[in-house]
Formats: sequence, structure tokens, C-alpha cells
Amino acid sequence: MTRPPAEPGFHLVVAPDKFKGSLSAPEVARIVAEAFREEFLGALIAARDARHLDATGLGVGSTELPLADGGEGTVEAALRSAGFRAVATRVPGPTGETVEATYARDGDLALIEMAQASGLDRLPGGRRAPLTATTRGTGALLRSALDFGARQIVLAVGGSASTDGGAGLLVALGARLLDATGHDLPDGGAALLDLDRIDLSGLDPRVHDVSWTLAADVDNPLLGERGAAAVFGPQKGATAADVELLDRALTRFADVLAATTGKDARDRPGAGAAGGVGLVALGLFGARRRPGVEVVLELANWEHRTRTASLVITGEGSFDEQSLGGKTPVGVATAAARIPAPVVVLSGRRTLSEDRWRAAGFADARALTDLEPDPQVCVRDAERLLAELARDLGREYGARAGQT
Amino acid sequence: MTRPPAEPGFHLVVAPDKFKGSLSAPEVARIVAEAFREEFLGALIAARDARHLDATGLGVGSTELPLADGGEGTVEAALRSAGFRAVATRVPGPTGETVEATYARDGDLALIEMAQASGLDRLPGGRRAPLTATTRGTGALLRSALDFGARQIVLAVGGSASTDGGAGLLVALGARLLDATGHDLPDGGAALLDLDRIDLSGLDPRVHDVSWTLAADVDNPLLGERGAAAVFGPQKGATAADVELLDRALTRFADVLAATTGKDARDRPGAGAAGGVGLVALGLFGARRRPGVEVVLELANWEHRTRTASLVITGEGSFDEQSLGGKTPVGVATAAARIPAPVVVLSGRRTLSEDRWRAAGFADARALTDLEPDPQVCVRDAERLLAELARDLGREYGARAGQT
Repeated sequence: MTRPPAEPGFHLVVAPDKFKGSLSAPEVARIVAEAFREEFLGALIAARDARHLDATGLGVGSTELPLADGGEGTVEAALRSAGFRAVATRVPGPTGETVEATYARDGDLALIEMAQASGLDRLPGGRRAPLTATTRGTGALLRSALDFGARQIVLAVGGSASTDGGAGLLVALGARLLDATGHDLPDGGAALLDLDRIDLSGLDPRVHDVSWTLAADVDNPLLGERGAAAVFGPQKGATAADVELLDRALTRFADVLAATTGKDARDRPGAGAAGGVGLVALGLFGARRRPGVEVVLELANWEHRTRTASLVITGEGSFDEQSLGGKTPVGVATAAARIPAPVVVLSGRRTLSEDRWRAAGFADARALTDLEPDPQVCVRDAERLLAELARDLGREYGARAGQT
Repeated sequence: MTRPPAEPGFHLVVAPDKFKGSLSAPEVARIVAEAFREEFLGALIAARDARHLDATGLGVGSTELPLADGGEGTVEAALRSAGFRAVATRVPGPTGETVEATYARDGDLALIEMAQASGLDRLPGGRRAPLTATTRGTGALLRSALDFGARQIVLAVGGSASTDGGAGLLVALGARLLDATGHDLPDGGAALLDLDRIDLSGLDPRVHDVSWTLAADVDNPLLGERGAAAVFGPQKGATAADVELLDRALTRFADVLAATTGKDARDRPGAGAAGGVGLVALGLFGARRRPGVEVVLELANWEHRTRTASLVITGEGSFDEQSLGGKTPVGVATAAARIPAPVVVLSGRRTLSEDRWRAAGFADARALTDLEPDPQVCVRDAERLLAELARDLGREYGARAGQT
């Protein structure tokens, strides 16, 4: 008996973000990997002499790497992809009520997802609170991370409910924000209008011993037309009048902080991220800003785990103009440019033209809406439709592998 | 504002096996971690001044490390705990029909779970086939691993349906087993009675370039009263007459193999593992035998991930006399003896006395049957009851942590 020619190992990497509103990133990864593998094997076996299954060594490798772009789901991705440990806490939510929040740590590195403590999804009843929402809970997460021995902290922002410039975060870490009568300010961005001075004497000194990363996709400054209030305030519930008020309040905060610390980061790209948390992170903590998906890919050990990839499948709920600004699939395509594997993007819906997605580095782009025109059915039957897209790909790549 | 004293980081490690028949190991790990953390935090906060949640940095860390002992579930544990890649294949099952089987790989290391291809759970309709069941499928998995570039192979045995001495495995790798008329033998252990000679000229030469590990808990020799047929044959469906026949057939196989290769491993501890697969693995491939749970703990990077553990919770379905022979919880207790954390075992049922489990290194042992006397209800409501046990532990350890 002669040995058949060695099977080149086909290695599928499934590295998607969540399909917001229907499937989590780990669910997407599992559904795609299972459906693809099944059809790939069937097609491969059909294309080969499969009478002697035992002598062919046929197989298809797969790596599931659920990802996120620094916003909601970032901690879950780190726990699933990167072997981080979970730390569960209870902290004040954006309007002060206690919420459960989890962060991830590995050795002296802590990954804090701001949305866990201070996110829009944490608002009681979903009622937005643009003027009063606070980042105190994020500060409590940071405190917990410091107490657990963190010396490197990645603060992943995105989806925050607050526009307080990181004031609450500072208070949770021991600072005092006082009005002209010497009283502590109440929570939220609007209250900063009454800020008279900042007392940093109680600030946890460990914040200066930490290597900080601000995982943020936006490069907005703190103030003005492109600032935190004007650009992101409305999606947090701010009216035009609120935006104007918050911009003035953030100006006051930046003025007093600069006078207190001698550092002024208000114009730095990213100072306006997460309702102005970027101001404190970049200016006071000396954080380095990096795109969220880039940080997540690094934590997930992307380079090592995809070295041998034959095909990369990524995905997200809506593949659109915003995707090109640093969302997960584009981050994956960029990282995958260093390996020969083609990158295919699966999405719930897709509004980008073929020219655009080809230019962004994708070999193929398919959407649930290609199979089912009704968007509501796409959300309801996301699992079934996604599996169908993955099966199609599995058949195509399996048949191709069978011919070589 | 003065900073409260640093919270010592409480770190729970949940490292269970499956509860056979009710919950997978990842499910057990998740249920226990979530329930424990919730009650731990509640008790800790109640014990402290929790008016200022934001300034306390309270938290509880947890690591989920689903494990296995080398038998069924070993590949899943490696995929979940150790960042292995899955390779899906289709191979011949124990009676020849095609089955789906997955193994795990990481770089040039492949972890093959024999039960995936040749296990009792892979028998069509569960009908046992003690005389004819084959290990050809396991050989096909090995072939696939070699084709994917494996240079280190861990063969985890346990739960096999076959008593063929690894004959099918050899055939799948290119050997020929011939009767006196020069015809290939049919599958299974009984057919080895007709073995006349073994032609190894077609054997895949790569098997000699591989570093082999046989992950097996049993130290039985191939033949006789403590041999593969006598000890393990009955659970594979062998009658007394079948056992006698299989023992003679395995003797014939060992004789011819020794005459062909000049190597005779029939009396080596573990040669009788997995219906005699140990004979081929130890004798022909030069495998090193190690306890399954020890291998799994090493692959899951146990030492690194549990260094800081405050408490280790392990578990399995039935915590009994057999557990002491190298099942997962005892493996965990042994490994954890090098760290200060106590080890608690949760199980579906428990027949060991307190003296016995204390001597085995456990600080506590609790069972679903402590809460619910009806074993059927324990299986049906395993999730709810397990969460209750974990909540009790969380409350106890949280209150204790709150007092220090």
C-alpha cells in the first residue's frame, strides 16, 4: 500500500465581532466554524477517492477567535480568546445604582471595558441621562484592578452613557471636585459648570505607576464642533441645549484640571472619547491611545494563532461605511494582510459596494440579507441564515481544496 | 479622603471534569463560577462598609479550567482551557461506519482522543461489538495529525469500544495484517486469531519521527487475568467466552508483532490500555505513559494559571473509590498541593468517607445528593443543585474574606 500524498492542512480562522442584537461573537464563531467544517469535509471527501477514509487523513482545522473593537464585548472576547481571568465586581452604574461589572486580567495586565460599568446598556430602564451620567463605576473598576495588582491597564471605551470628562472616574480614585463653597460636586457632566477646584491629594498614587492604554477608535478632541458633547452627546440623549451646556461644563473641567496639574490634553486626538474620559486618560495618566480592535487582536495573540491560516472569516452585524473607520472586520483584514489567507466578511446587512470592500482588503462579502430580504427575519433567524452562508463557503473551499 | 486598605485579590479556580450524563465540564465550570462569584460578592459587601462601593475595589477573580482525565471530553477541555485549534475529520467508527471526530492541535503537538473515533459512544445504536470493533478510526486521526505536521502526539485513551490490540490503528497507518492465505484480516480483535504475519513495509515512516505520549490511567498488561480482555472486555460487551477468545487472539497478535519487530511490550504496564492499543503505542511507537489528568493539566498550563489561587473547586459526576485511582479531582488535588489554596470537590454523588477524601487532599466535599436524595432528580436538576452548592461556598468564603 502506498501512502497517499500528504494533505495540506486547511486551517480556517473565524474571527468575528458580535452581530449586535442577535448573536454574541463567540456564538458567531461557533456557528460559522461548525457549519463551514461540515460542508468543507463533505465536499473534500466527495472530490477525493474517499473509499478509504482511514487512509486519507482528511481534516479541516479551525480556530475560533471571537473579537471586539474595544466597545461592548471586549472583556468577553479577552476571556474567550486570550485566556484572561474574569474579575466580577459590583460598582455604581451610570446613574449610581449598583451594577454587576466584569473585567479581565492576566498577570499584572487588566482590561477594563468602560461599557460594563458606565455603558448605555447599564442605564436603568434604558432611560438616558446625558447631564448626570457618571463614570464613577469605571473608576471603581480601576480601583479594583489596582487592588488586584494591575501595573498595565487597558481602558477600552465605547458605548458609554456619560459626558463627564472622566470626572466621576477621578473621584472614585480619590480626587475631590469642589464647588466655590467647598462642597463635593454631584455626579455628571452638567455639574462641572460649578467646579471651583480639584483636590488631587487623595488620588490613588498607584495610577502613576501604571502603564496605561486607551483603546479608542475616535480621534475627537474634548471640545467644540468635533468634541465629546457635540458629536457623541446626542446618542446619549443630549438635546441641542444640553450639548451646549455640556461643552461649557467640559471647558470648565479642562480649565481647572489644567490649572491644577499643569497638563492640558483637551486638544489631543481622543481626548473627546467616551464623554471626555480621554482627557483624564491621556492628560493625567499618560495613556497611549490605540485602536480597540488592534489591542484586542494583540491580546488574543492574533499573529501566532493565524500564522498558518488558509482562510479568515470575520463578521459583524452591519457592514457599512462606519465599518471602514476601524471596526473589527477591517481591523482583521488589515492584520491579515501579512498572511496569504483571503479574508471573507459575513454580516447581517451590507451597504458597502464591492469596490469599497475589495479596496478594504476583503476577498468576499456576504450578508444574511442576501438570503433573506426581510431584516426582521434576519435578526430572528440569524443563526440559521449565518450557518447557511458558512455552509456555502465550506462547500466552495472544500471543493477547491479537493481539486488540488 | 483616605484610601481603604487594599483588598487582597480573591481568586477562584474552577477546574472540574464533566458530570457524566448531565453536564459537560465547561458547563460545570461556568455554573459554579457564576453562582460562587455572585454570593461571594454579596457576602463580602455585607461584611464591609459598602456605602461607598466606588471606593472599595471589591471584586472576585475566577478562572474556568474545564478538565478531563484523558477519556471522553479531553479534546474539548484542551480546546477550552488551552487555546488549542480544533481539527474536524470523518473517520471510520468502531464498526466501520463513518463518524465525525475532532482532535486538538497546537503547533506541532496533536492531542488525539481515542473515544472520538473508536469510543463506546460511537457505536451505532449503542450496540456493543466486543469481537469486531476496530481502532482503524483512531489510526485515521493519527494519519490526519501526521499530515497536518504533528511531531508530538498525545494519544488519550479511555472509553474505547475495541479489544483489537491496536491492530486497526496499525492498518490505518499502512501496515498489513495477513492470514495464512495472504489475505488481509477483517476488523476487530477476534480476527487476530487468524493472523499469520504482519507486513510493516507500508507503515507510515513518520510514526518513528514523533514523540509519543500515551495518556492512560491504567497499568494493566496486555494479557491474562489483569489483561485488556479480562478486565475491560466485559464493559465492552464481551461474554466470558469472548474474553477467553480475545485473550488468545491478543496473544497471537503479540507473538507475531514481537517476531516481526523484535520488540515485545506485552508485559509493560499500560500495554492493556484501550483494548490493547497500549501494546502498539508503547512497544512499536516508543510512547511514554502518563496519567491522563496530568497531561491535561499540563496542556492547560495549570501551574501558571493557578499560581495565585485562593480556592480551587473541582468536581465530577461520581466521587467514589474509582476517583482515587487518578480521576480528575484527585489529579487536581495532587497538583494543588504545591499551592496554599484549599481544594473543594463538588460531585453528583459521593460514596467516599470523610477520612478518605481528607487523606486524598480535599478540604471539603459536597454532593448534589446532600441537597436532594433522589438521584434521578439530581441528574435532571443538576444545574440548579450545583449552583446551590456553589452559592453556599461563595457565601462562606465571601463572609470569611469580609472579616479579614
